Amino acid sequence: MRIVRFKKAETVRYGILLGNEVAPLINGPFGLLDIPDDAPRFPLPEVQLLSPVTPGKVLAVGRNYAAHAAELGNDVPEEPLVFLKPGSSVIGPGENIVKPPYTKELHHEAELAVVIGRRCKELTPGQVPAHILGYTCANDITARDLQGPDRQWWRAKGSDTFCPLGPWVETELDPAALSVRTEVDGETRQDGSTAQMVHTVAMLISHISAAMTLDPGDVILTGTPAGVGPLHPGDQVTVSVEGIGDLTNRII
Amino acid sequence: MRIVRFKKAETVRYGILLGNEVAPLINGPFGLLDIPDDAPRFPLPEVQLLSPVTPGKVLAVGRNYAAHAAELGNDVPEEPLVFLKPGSSVIGPGENIVKPPYTKELHHEAELAVVIGRRCKELTPGQVPAHILGYTCANDITARDLQGPDRQWWRAKGSDTFCPLGPWVETELDPAALSVRTEVDGETRQDGSTAQMVHTVAMLISHISAAMTLDPGDVILTGTPAGVGPLHPGDQVTVSVEGIGDLTNRII
Repeated sequence: MRIVRFKKAETVRYGILLGNEVAPLINGPFGLLDIPDDAPRFPLPEVQLLSPVTPGKVLAVGRNYAAHAAELGNDVPEEPLVFLKPGSSVIGPGENIVKPPYTKELHHEAELAVVIGRRCKELTPGQVPAHILGYTCANDITARDLQGPDRQWWRAKGSDTFCPLGPWVETELDPAALSVRTEVDGETRQDGSTAQMVHTVAMLISHISAAMTLDPGDVILTGTPAGVGPLHPGDQVTVSVEGIGDLTNRII
Repeated sequence: MRIVRFKKAETVRYGILLGNEVAPLINGPFGLLDIPDDAPRFPLPEVQLLSPVTPGKVLAVGRNYAAHAAELGNDVPEEPLVFLKPGSSVIGPGENIVKPPYTKELHHEAELAVVIGRRCKELTPGQVPAHILGYTCANDITARDLQGPDRQWWRAKGSDTFCPLGPWVETELDPAALSVRTEVDGETRQDGSTAQMVHTVAMLISHISAAMTLDPGDVILTGTPAGVGPLHPGDQVTVSVEGIGDLTNRII
């Protein structure tokens, strides 16, 4: 099932994608996914898709694909290299990624994103799947030139518009071996598979939940494959994850 | 004026502290602070004070007091060393700080905390005061032994219970020269003044807001004076900021 968040006539709602139509959800995405028989249905082209969730926090993982760690000259860490992105950095499909004046080197990073469905803490890897709502595409936008000088990546990873998510949350998906791709203006830049992850989705979320409570709507970005590279104003960047769809944004 | 968030008979509300009584606010703390004439008043000892706000994000600043940077062998950075703490790390006065099994070195850090009152972005230092709701005490709990190995401080600074805030938000306060103290089991451990800050409150918030939108309830921790030190299970730790009050928590 595909869960969307959308705007229609200035009203923001959650909904379910049914073919090429959107049916609004009554109770949001975290309870029973109820659609009454007489619910309205909106043609997809007539609604504006928003980021499918509004996370309280986003946890992300660096160097989780060996080939990407190598391309930046880094070792693969034994434990996941986790960092925080704030909810204020999230944008939806079609929204603009704003290149801030304080960076000269903005990079794309295509990633599989996991959306938490149930409040949880200290999960074993085996307990993780039951606490996941579903999966979406993410672009972990990075000001590469600030990661060193700033030491902590609050700005390199957490600036406004640095976390495009979407286009929807796919609730039925096996994350084990999905193609993860980036195109910039139609040219393929990243083309990897989640099968290349060093730490699996279940391992990552178990590790993170050992330290902090995860709430419904929180998002975990699972790392990027090799091929990261620069983005410039005017570029159109599309992240595609197999079984989910395409997330497209323009740089301004 | 002092704004509290409190629980009484299983209901959580915002309120105003009037002498030794709490009067509930109708519309929360970010609009007009309306108290109707016939509002109930609860004696302070009969309510449970909670963290005075529930921030979407907490920004914190390292090495903002030269003497503290020196005690850990660090330089004072030219730009503020900013990092994120998640909202899930926040607890209120009287709640327990849980020492996680993955650290052997838990430290207290007494800090003046600033609570944002109005949504803002790209503020000049001069515009900052009009966007502040008020000030509270914070203890920037730190797993010192994880800051190096983890590289990013998601766990060293962001674990559950690592951000005690309280006891209330004082809306009328000049932050320029306030005593900031820590006592552990009655023994003074930190005793500084906000006058020793390298970057002032207005400079910090201007710098942070250049990168990210700040929302009402977001909190900025402004750095800790010299004297940080270990906390052990059973310890009672109190952070006191002049003009605000005392924030006490126990380690378990």
